[in-house]
Amino acid sequence: MSLLTVGSVAFDALETPFGKTDKIIGGAATYITLAASYFTKKNNLVAVVGGDFPQEMIDVLVSHGIDTEGLQIKQDGKTFFWSGKYHEDMNTRDTVDVQLNVMADFDPVIPASYQGCEYLMLGNTAPAIQKLVLERMERRPKLVMLDTMNFWMDIAMPDLEAVLPLIDLLTINDEEARMLSGEYSLRKAAKVIMDKGPKTLVIKKGEHGALLFQDDRIFFAPALPLEEVFDPTGAGDTFAGGFIGYLTQTDDISFENMKRAIIYGSAMASFCVEKFGSERLVNLTQEEITGRVKEFVQLASFEIK
Amino acid sequence: MSLLTVGSVAFDALETPFGKTDKIIGGAATYITLAASYFTKKNNLVAVVGGDFPQEMIDVLVSHGIDTEGLQIKQDGKTFFWSGKYHEDMNTRDTVDVQLNVMADFDPVIPASYQGCEYLMLGNTAPAIQKLVLERMERRPKLVMLDTMNFWMDIAMPDLEAVLPLIDLLTINDEEARMLSGEYSLRKAAKVIMDKGPKTLVIKKGEHGALLFQDDRIFFAPALPLEEVFDPTGAGDTFAGGFIGYLTQTDDISFENMKRAIIYGSAMASFCVEKFGSERLVNLTQEEITGRVKEFVQLASFEIK
Repeated sequence: MSLLTVGSVAFDALETPFGKTDKIIGGAATYITLAASYFTKKNNLVAVVGGDFPQEMIDVLVSHGIDTEGLQIKQDGKTFFWSGKYHEDMNTRDTVDVQLNVMADFDPVIPASYQGCEYLMLGNTAPAIQKLVLERMERRPKLVMLDTMNFWMDIAMPDLEAVLPLIDLLTINDEEARMLSGEYSLRKAAKVIMDKGPKTLVIKKGEHGALLFQDDRIFFAPALPLEEVFDPTGAGDTFAGGFIGYLTQTDDISFENMKRAIIYGSAMASFCVEKFGSERLVNLTQEEITGRVKEFVQLASFEIK
Repeated sequence: MSLLTVGSVAFDALETPFGKTDKIIGGAATYITLAASYFTKKNNLVAVVGGDFPQEMIDVLVSHGIDTEGLQIKQDGKTFFWSGKYHEDMNTRDTVDVQLNVMADFDPVIPASYQGCEYLMLGNTAPAIQKLVLERMERRPKLVMLDTMNFWMDIAMPDLEAVLPLIDLLTINDEEARMLSGEYSLRKAAKVIMDKGPKTLVIKKGEHGALLFQDDRIFFAPALPLEEVFDPTGAGDTFAGGFIGYLTQTDDISFENMKRAIIYGSAMASFCVEKFGSERLVNLTQEEITGRVKEFVQLASFEIK
């Protein structure tokens, strides 16, 4: 099966209590496709960068089997840039600088060779663009997953409300679920949000794990308690990439398999935060991933007599 | 096996977004013994109340098989009183009024018939009193569990540090674990805290579940996502009571059985928050508890192929 990811490829400059970086590769679609690359080799990317984006960074994506035919390079433009600084607790961050640059008028062109993909990941970007991508798919994918954030709820709620009925699975964090639903209880929030369209909802809770909702079913996935969170940037996107990568690989969208996909996504996210940016994601082995998934099994397993 | 619980029996006056109560029965030892009563009928209580404490409330405890020989009644004193108001999100609360009354000079006398208990629960109270109880045990129990809170870390840290080496299991919440250890990462915090004495640590995370640490082992227990949290008062104590009640019943302090105990404790706590105070705890059936535990199994179970 094949996966198509649409989203940002960007430069990030990060500062955490452990240090700071110059411009490094970032962006939702970068983390998603890198994480998914450990599960599928039919890994298609639609994004836009400027002429300042180094070929060696594209080479990293290509070396992971990511198809970059859909990566537009605007030679006279500059790449989307985000700079952030994390607070001591790593749970909150300030945006230091945002330069939309070529993302400001991103036109998501889908190459013909990408048409017919079964799994579509709409990475965090303007809901109007996410909707446009769906309209440009000649055949509706088997599963459409969308990630969004509070920023779009603030400035583009009608656009977001318009795309929600068209997707199968929404992933947001707990604060965003409360914001989108107006309900504090996540169980109530999930019902309200699923009534807006998506049949399945994943609520990410960072160090507290994740919740999967579908109809009346709920799955509570643990997060691995880590010694050190070095840099949380991209953890949510990496989770999404591992999740949909696993679904693409197994081509099974049952609730039971989505549970497994959440564990794989959580395992990938637990690697992501160990180093700056996507550094840890580019050199993983299948053995490391299998080992980490086993840690999740041990972490959460119990037996009632 | 028999359980001894030492802690407060009190009056509470509560206000939540759902309503308010007059003086109702509260206190750590009340919730602990009520929760434990569903698991063991050798359920001994040491606490102190004033002459204003109604016999009918004592009758409720007795009707649950709780032995109240160790419940001192100071006829000329008044019962410990706490009044609190919860914020809209139910996660934070303000203390409106505290009157220590007879708790101010609580002398925990252990009746002879309570000596020899195998399980000892030191409910949240002054660490010096908790230590005194331990010194008054003629034979060291098989398992000593202690609950405490940030308040004691603020005003009685040396006393707390003095009792920690004497206990087997400490239960605190995530913020308190960070406060007690000076570490933000809960995995690091757990190591620091276990180095202070207790071989086993339970970190309660409220709606995010609980973590069990012992040596290098970790168990991540889910919390049931609830439609409505009506009143969180006593949830932590109820968790502790279900936990140690289950251990007392099964008399198995292996890590695997402690995992089960956490699930039972979490199930009891999930009932507690459904109504004001201990209202929901006094009328549970074994069928309801079994059913709730099954919900936890469904909530957290997954299988990696």
